[in-house]
Amino acid sequence: MEIHKLIQPLVRETDSKIVLLVIDGAGDLPVDGKTPLEAARTPNLDKLAQESALGLMDPVARGITPGSGPGHLGLFGYDPLQYEVGRGVLAALGIGLQLGPDDVAARGNFATVNENGLVTDRRAGRIPTELNSELCEKLRQHLKRIEDVELLIEPVMDYRFVLILRGLGLGGAVADTDPQETGVGPKPAAPLVQDEATARTAQIADRFSAQAREILKNEENANAVLLRGFGKLPPIPKMQDIYKLQPAVIAGYPMYRGVARLVGMDIPPLDLGEERLEEKTRVLAEYWEEFDFFFLHVKNTDSAGEDGNFSKKVQLIEEFDAHLARILEQQPDVLAITADHSTPVPLKSHSWHPVPLLLKSHYIRPGEGERFTERECQTGSLGRFRSVELMPQLLAHALKLRKFGA
Amino acid sequence: MEIHKLIQPLVRETDSKIVLLVIDGAGDLPVDGKTPLEAARTPNLDKLAQESALGLMDPVARGITPGSGPGHLGLFGYDPLQYEVGRGVLAALGIGLQLGPDDVAARGNFATVNENGLVTDRRAGRIPTELNSELCEKLRQHLKRIEDVELLIEPVMDYRFVLILRGLGLGGAVADTDPQETGVGPKPAAPLVQDEATARTAQIADRFSAQAREILKNEENANAVLLRGFGKLPPIPKMQDIYKLQPAVIAGYPMYRGVARLVGMDIPPLDLGEERLEEKTRVLAEYWEEFDFFFLHVKNTDSAGEDGNFSKKVQLIEEFDAHLARILEQQPDVLAITADHSTPVPLKSHSWHPVPLLLKSHYIRPGEGERFTERECQTGSLGRFRSVELMPQLLAHALKLRKFGA
Repeated sequence: MEIHKLIQPLVRETDSKIVLLVIDGAGDLPVDGKTPLEAARTPNLDKLAQESALGLMDPVARGITPGSGPGHLGLFGYDPLQYEVGRGVLAALGIGLQLGPDDVAARGNFATVNENGLVTDRRAGRIPTELNSELCEKLRQHLKRIEDVELLIEPVMDYRFVLILRGLGLGGAVADTDPQETGVGPKPAAPLVQDEATARTAQIADRFSAQAREILKNEENANAVLLRGFGKLPPIPKMQDIYKLQPAVIAGYPMYRGVARLVGMDIPPLDLGEERLEEKTRVLAEYWEEFDFFFLHVKNTDSAGEDGNFSKKVQLIEEFDAHLARILEQQPDVLAITADHSTPVPLKSHSWHPVPLLLKSHYIRPGEGERFTERECQTGSLGRFRSVELMPQLLAHALKLRKFGA
Repeated sequence: MEIHKLIQPLVRETDSKIVLLVIDGAGDLPVDGKTPLEAARTPNLDKLAQESALGLMDPVARGITPGSGPGHLGLFGYDPLQYEVGRGVLAALGIGLQLGPDDVAARGNFATVNENGLVTDRRAGRIPTELNSELCEKLRQHLKRIEDVELLIEPVMDYRFVLILRGLGLGGAVADTDPQETGVGPKPAAPLVQDEATARTAQIADRFSAQAREILKNEENANAVLLRGFGKLPPIPKMQDIYKLQPAVIAGYPMYRGVARLVGMDIPPLDLGEERLEEKTRVLAEYWEEFDFFFLHVKNTDSAGEDGNFSKKVQLIEEFDAHLARILEQQPDVLAITADHSTPVPLKSHSWHPVPLLLKSHYIRPGEGERFTERECQTGSLGRFRSVELMPQLLAHALKLRKFGA
């Protein structure tokens, strides 16, 4: 079933407002018998859970560990199996770059290689964003174009930058040059399909890497670049067109802003200095009247999971709980709290485990569970389903979907 | 998965009998903490639930509110996303009209327009069926054909009639002329696809509406017609062919008889005067030997939901409970009790909420729940699935499906 084909003709505009709260990587496994959601003291979330419908979602499919892109696309109702978006495109959109349909974007890492050309640090000692900006400026001065292809080089954060190849006759199906390990050299940018455009794009990417290495050769740490996530902007319908929504993203991290912009979300200005929930809830309140769908992203829970830091994850969940009241003050007609994927502390990485879901609206039956935890959500009335099926349910609860058939 | 392709080669004929009881719109939301199913005293249904397997079904898909047509097609194992059937076709079949593959059917309302041609009552003051019949006869006398297209005009019930356009070179993709609101004029019959047949059909429909208006101009209430649900009989396989069943429908309301006939069900004669369960259970007993699949429809629960009448819905459920013994006396091998969709009292309309399901056979594990309610069904062993997956399970429990693969 193509879910958008089903939904689009049924959508109607109403005044109701939907808030989608994504606690990144919130799903987890127990450590000493309790998951972070179970260990955290969350009085506000508990009360909300008791008034909500509960369930579990599989972001992509059972057993599949999603990247952040697919994880979020599913939540927005875009089947991640249908829409594949390169990390380069998401990074470029996330820092506000405009991409044309012919552009190829890639994510870049500044990295360290030794005298033999072997990678010793894939992140160049995690150089600060300021140095990143200087290095990008330096590359730009010497690398404006290769052949007739214009190069755009923009810093993202820390050691990460974006490279855009702008020209005609380019192809996005190019393999990563990042070897994903140290002690080996960067890989060549191999074409993944057999056509002239892709072969040429791979060559240009390799020439970029070689010239960048020459330009950066005297840097202490950042003396090389690694590229990954090549791709073009895929044709993807906007949420405005499919759902007749006016959507906004409230997220700090560029990647999430990128995937949100990809599907048409506006980005109200946010103080990006920190991942502060005060700032995010302030923006939610300030822009409440201007939009009718808000995607509010809580990032650091995922990082705590990746670091294997159980107590930090617990603490961040408790912080989120403390800010929940401010969000509820807006009285959204429909509120969903969930995650884009699980990031279990024992695994220190994204995982395939389903994510807990809480759905509050005027049209649910309260009393399904006591808390917003993996375990309580398991027996909720929403059952277990793929994330891509969430949006139709949010729209239905907001009374934004007409009847199907007579 | 095309479910019929899977099932058809596995089906075998047996003597076992299946009864599908559809309590229309039975699913609901709590009012003062209880849904109508929870508030009703249903000793017979309770006992049956304790001996049955329980579950929840999504009639079309999560978040989708089904019309009655799609709701029932799913229950009969026809994916409503694959088989879209116009309301006109269902209404025509429901009153026993034969449709050819070239016929276009539409549902008509007698309506009231004012001196400026604006609709003041979409149902002409809900004129009685007798007046409806007289008006149809009047239209028939003056409107036998337009060009070479024969017109069939038949009363249904109250203010509703069926119009059939019979001729070659017609198309069914024509928009409703019913504006669905008062204070505006009827809409033109707009073609929804760009081809000659559809354009011509739309023109003929408009000429029918204009001439009907002229014929009816001196009527007090019913001085105009509104048309909707245009369409042709879609090619749809019969239950006899897919399931090797001899199916019968026991329903009073034409719409449900129509959708049942569409999939090949026979219609044993029923005193249609009332939606009486005595009559329906009598027909079930009388025709028990002649068929092996019975679809027995209970209509008024849906109407009570649409009226927002909680106590009426409770009362109708209790009435159903009182008649259950008569149905059980037949000792069906497989008995399913469910709904085509939810019609929650708080919403006063069909909704997207899943429907409760009870399945009784010799091959289930009893003791899953105490009652046939939304809440008890939520934790049943059948889990939650799309209605289109019900029929294979009914056939399996009736031992009518062979093993798949060696």
